[in-house]
Amino acid sequence: MALRAALRNKCGLSGLLSQRSSCSSHGRVCVSPVLVAQQRNNSTSPKIDVEFDQSTGVAVMRMQSPPVNSLSLDFLTEFCIGVEKLEMDKGCRGLIITSNQPKVFSAGLDIMEMYGKSPERCGEFWRAVQEMWLKLYSSDMVTIAAINGSSPAGGCLMSITCDYRIMADNPRYSIGLNETQLGIVAPFWFKDTMLNTVGHRTTEMALELGLLYNPSEALKIGLVDQLVPEDQVLTTAAQAMTKWLAIPDHARQITKSMMRKPTVDKLTSNREADIQNFVSFITKDSIQKSLRMYLEMLKKRRA
Amino acid sequence: MALRAALRNKCGLSGLLSQRSSCSSHGRVCVSPVLVAQQRNNSTSPKIDVEFDQSTGVAVMRMQSPPVNSLSLDFLTEFCIGVEKLEMDKGCRGLIITSNQPKVFSAGLDIMEMYGKSPERCGEFWRAVQEMWLKLYSSDMVTIAAINGSSPAGGCLMSITCDYRIMADNPRYSIGLNETQLGIVAPFWFKDTMLNTVGHRTTEMALELGLLYNPSEALKIGLVDQLVPEDQVLTTAAQAMTKWLAIPDHARQITKSMMRKPTVDKLTSNREADIQNFVSFITKDSIQKSLRMYLEMLKKRRA
Amino acid sequence: MALRAALRNKCGLSGLLSQRSSCSSHGRVCVSPVLVAQQRNNSTSPKIDVEFDQSTGVAVMRMQSPPVNSLSLDFLTEFCIGVEKLEMDKGCRGLIITSNQPKVFSAGLDIMEMYGKSPERCGEFWRAVQEMWLKLYSSDMVTIAAINGSSPAGGCLMSITCDYRIMADNPRYSIGLNETQLGIVAPFWFKDTMLNTVGHRTTEMALELGLLYNPSEALKIGLVDQLVPEDQVLTTAAQAMTKWLAIPDHARQITKSMMRKPTVDKLTSNREADIQNFVSFITKDSIQKSLRMYLEMLKKRRA
Repeated sequence: MALRAALRNKCGLSGLLSQRSSCSSHGRVCVSPVLVAQQRNNSTSPKIDVEFDQSTGVAVMRMQSPPVNSLSLDFLTEFCIGVEKLEMDKGCRGLIITSNQPKVFSAGLDIMEMYGKSPERCGEFWRAVQEMWLKLYSSDMVTIAAINGSSPAGGCLMSITCDYRIMADNPRYSIGLNETQLGIVAPFWFKDTMLNTVGHRTTEMALELGLLYNPSEALKIGLVDQLVPEDQVLTTAAQAMTKWLAIPDHARQITKSMMRKPTVDKLTSNREADIQNFVSFITKDSIQKSLRMYLEMLKKRRA
Repeated sequence: MALRAALRNKCGLSGLLSQRSSCSSHGRVCVSPVLVAQQRNNSTSPKIDVEFDQSTGVAVMRMQSPPVNSLSLDFLTEFCIGVEKLEMDKGCRGLIITSNQPKVFSAGLDIMEMYGKSPERCGEFWRAVQEMWLKLYSSDMVTIAAINGSSPAGGCLMSITCDYRIMADNPRYSIGLNETQLGIVAPFWFKDTMLNTVGHRTTEMALELGLLYNPSEALKIGLVDQLVPEDQVLTTAAQAMTKWLAIPDHARQITKSMMRKPTVDKLTSNREADIQNFVSFITKDSIQKSLRMYLEMLKKRRA
Repeated sequence: MALRAALRNKCGLSGLLSQRSSCSSHGRVCVSPVLVAQQRNNSTSPKIDVEFDQSTGVAVMRMQSPPVNSLSLDFLTEFCIGVEKLEMDKGCRGLIITSNQPKVFSAGLDIMEMYGKSPERCGEFWRAVQEMWLKLYSSDMVTIAAINGSSPAGGCLMSITCDYRIMADNPRYSIGLNETQLGIVAPFWFKDTMLNTVGHRTTEMALELGLLYNPSEALKIGLVDQLVPEDQVLTTAAQAMTKWLAIPDHARQITKSMMRKPTVDKLTSNREADIQNFVSFITKDSIQKSLRMYLEMLKKRRA
């Protein structure tokens, strides 16, 4: 079943490697997954728009880092500060995360943070990725992902850390942890989050084959909870939020912690080793060479 | 999906709080779930009828504690003694649990055991709840829940400790661990039992939202194993029992223990801490205040 | 559902016990499951045919030990040596396992290895069963089970240690860990492998009832991944292999190890105790008596 899903993915490996901005040349929207060479944008405009409605207690974070909301160190830093501010605001009980970029929720980690960088810088970047996950997965707020575009790799991770996932029912979009397709490996806490969402066997297949699922496949395996037409993603998220907020906060929070704390603790108590592990892997000559070839291919495509 | 299920639950939170005896005023039978203020019944008539057929080796326990088989300390004590007697009888190989009350299997823990009681008494009550779970979840007998009515909270817990669950296919009935809807939290061993039954993600949603499922929803997520018309629940349970008893006892018992022992051991080795935890939570002023308001509302309804 | 599946199994317990070679007398092909009294075959012809295609990097192992590919010590030894040779060949990236015997993939452990044997010999046999599982479950190769016949007990174990399972869509075939039906118990690592494949609740039911599933039931619960007409099992396996081999080996291997290492480590660090446990169980008078009765019944059937 999942294998057939992979087959239907017209993009294949070369597609994965070649598409750096969103496109729909092969029928499915391929945003460069896993690793994204984000065009440097030196503007100081915020990469995330935060709108908090005090009357409902619900904040909406709109990711707006062109072209594909790739997770750079700057982006992650801004994201974590934004979540922390809302978390500390007692009036904020719910958070909806969505994208302001067309066709993409988030394309995942920014390749430029991993190529030709010092081990120190790589470590700093990885700590930010950890921080994003820790903040979201253990948030006291109700978190809902309004997935209005493709969501590979780090974008999928961000989605599955939320409490509830609503995805646009557009067969051109896809979601999944597709790291192995590029020779990269999802770390244990990506794996644990996936496992808590879709179970052991589906996670094994999904991670070993680096599967990307279209929305109806994702719904079927439980990777997302609900599909709606693209223009209703945000309104549906707001409606779902109302249901979640009908539950007394303290009871819901204690229950959420009971479900997620063992998984959170595993990273918290292995954080430095996980950073070491990432840095020594990503700074390997063979991996840097793969990244260079990937970047050169991107340059040619742009030319 | 589950969210939609919650929406279809016409009773909602106020329904949950207001119905103390079984009713069908809003289309679905709402037995006061989680916490039940059982009418004191000083009669010494047994709260549970036990019928043991030596020729088949199967016992049937019929809960008959009006109005809604709420789990009081007296009820639990009688229940545990009944199970223990059967467990020690070598001729008894199977146990079917069902209800003699109309429309309800069991409405869960008795609120009167938790309101205005001394910490010692609360602790005694909680130890009895633990005992019921420990006895059923690790029973050497084949245990089948013949769920012929609604089964919220503690009633659901009792059901999922059994080896097999047959539910009446009546859309007015519901089953689930709905504790959070009342601001209460299901303890870790309720959660573990649910997780062993329906998996991590479904448990997360079910417990955080305090979801009650109608029979077909419950079948779909695996919370029950089989639906049959209401008047066939008990005969179907007897038929299923025959299949289970066709397996050599010792092989089945070793296998059952292999599957359940880690979960049982977690409570056994944390039993006192779990009691402490419950007592300190339930005797909090804020929780006692919630219970008082709930009881006052019940009084008004009765008047 | 699963119970109904068991009911549809026309063979039942007596069928399980009585059929020693493949037959279809009752509509479903019953190969003597769990324990097989293999006809002694003193020929030195290999019990497994290995064909390795260097151009594709894929090896095919065809089990050809008449009548039902039962797992004797000789068979297991040859099997493990075969897998190890391929594992050490850097050019071999994928392994497809299938059967050359009609109607059966493998009927499971050979009863003659357990009846009337010395504890030392029983221990040697069990170590070989462990070795087969350890080699397959932690193989660096992509492993695909091309299940072209019934696959009870040890045959099912072999299947679920592979990365992917394709089964012939013939309703007469069945697959499952049916040990309890014979009074035997699947050890913890059989259970763990099943649990990693179909989840906790399905494993609990399957192992306690010793359920055998027909192909469509097996697909539904996720015990196999794909059904195809019988004559397409091997070609489909080859096609699936191509997809798996499109993933860079090192990323897939690290991911596979991340998913399976905890389960592998549990047996590795308890191997001697597990052997002790098996030997003391199987050499019990009561178990040996059961085996003798079983063998005598087989003799009568042959006569």
